[in-house]
Amino acid sequence: MGIRAVLLDVFGTLLDVHSVAARAEQMFPGNGQRLSQLWRQKQLEYTRLRTLCDRYVPFTQVTEDALLYACDALHLPLDAAARGLLMHEYTQLSAFSDVVPALRRIQHTGLTLGVLSNGDPGLLEDALHSAQLDEYFDLILSADQVRAYKTAPAAYGLGPQTLGCPAGNIFFISSNGWDASCATWYGYKTCWVNRNGAPAERLGAAPHVIGRTLEVATDFLHKELQPAA
Amino acid sequence: MGIRAVLLDVFGTLLDVHSVAARAEQMFPGNGQRLSQLWRQKQLEYTRLRTLCDRYVPFTQVTEDALLYACDALHLPLDAAARGLLMHEYTQLSAFSDVVPALRRIQHTGLTLGVLSNGDPGLLEDALHSAQLDEYFDLILSADQVRAYKTAPAAYGLGPQTLGCPAGNIFFISSNGWDASCATWYGYKTCWVNRNGAPAERLGAAPHVIGRTLEVATDFLHKELQPAA
Repeated sequence: MGIRAVLLDVFGTLLDVHSVAARAEQMFPGNGQRLSQLWRQKQLEYTRLRTLCDRYVPFTQVTEDALLYACDALHLPLDAAARGLLMHEYTQLSAFSDVVPALRRIQHTGLTLGVLSNGDPGLLEDALHSAQLDEYFDLILSADQVRAYKTAPAAYGLGPQTLGCPAGNIFFISSNGWDASCATWYGYKTCWVNRNGAPAERLGAAPHVIGRTLEVATDFLHKELQPAA
Repeated sequence: MGIRAVLLDVFGTLLDVHSVAARAEQMFPGNGQRLSQLWRQKQLEYTRLRTLCDRYVPFTQVTEDALLYACDALHLPLDAAARGLLMHEYTQLSAFSDVVPALRRIQHTGLTLGVLSNGDPGLLEDALHSAQLDEYFDLILSADQVRAYKTAPAAYGLGPQTLGCPAGNIFFISSNGWDASCATWYGYKTCWVNRNGAPAERLGAAPHVIGRTLEVATDFLHKELQPAA
């Protein structure tokens, strides 16, 4: 065996960002889905462009920049109040129903349990506290510590460096296909929780475990940790 | 003054990728636009993920990977013939109508004229030849030379390194807002040819010149090169 710790992605993996689209739909009827999709797409794009160009700003700022772009693109008027409400939504997300059972099961293994997220520490603290998940984690790793977003090696490197063991001994779980694939490249043992039935990424880096809920990850851990007969 | 050379992006800036959507529409009626948009989005995403993770493969391969993903996502059956046809389309694009007049005008200035593209050399050669543009360029710079895609500093660095002058003495022209903004960060004098009336990128790096066609770029050059009265 060799798994010594478990790291999870946060947004989309632990926390359901669906309520952002619902809030956007209330504000801009008929445009909630399009707005939240473009917002998310631009948010990811900006994390990557800024990391490639070494122009880091915290995730909260990237998220707000992406929101402004998305509203510009869809010709939606965003006043300060609406902007504040939508940004606030990110700190108030609910956990998916499979999260608490999975975290409890991982806790029972005795493995170190943490998150590895692009979110800045303030946002992570607020969001995990609001979703009542903070008690489960031994460590909170944020891209902010290295001022580089996933999928940069510096961000994935936080795991092995903090835990003092090779990436191959860490089980990394994400619902984002690109995150699971790039973590595989980095050397982690990986699980892709494909919550939305997305197609497999065509990157030539297949995650080690793939399923629709976190149960597939805990099942894998359970099997890995069983002593050989 | 100080402009000593002009570098242009290729796909979308010189060459119109619209015919790709038209070909896709012929193959998959009702889905051509969605397919070509998702294809393009995924192509960009893969260039960035691969560069961030130092997993370079040539642009032609990235483009084909992105096509396969996009067809998976839209549940479109792509056989080998259709795949070949769509990929071939990229080598047969037409130049926008403002391109030849602009290139002639730039040639008359006597400045060194080149392209700086993510395309691999084979693709660039085929595409520029097919569009009858190859005669205009003194140099063809490809991300392939450094195995890193724009917006990585290594890719933008090809300009100053090859031309032997600072980026601030090179005028870089792109129709991609992200390309123009990130080149501005790198230090180029930049022009964003906003052909589709897209919103400004929210990156805090405004290109120096912005307009709808290449004419705005040549007008700027003309003014810059005029001797002071």
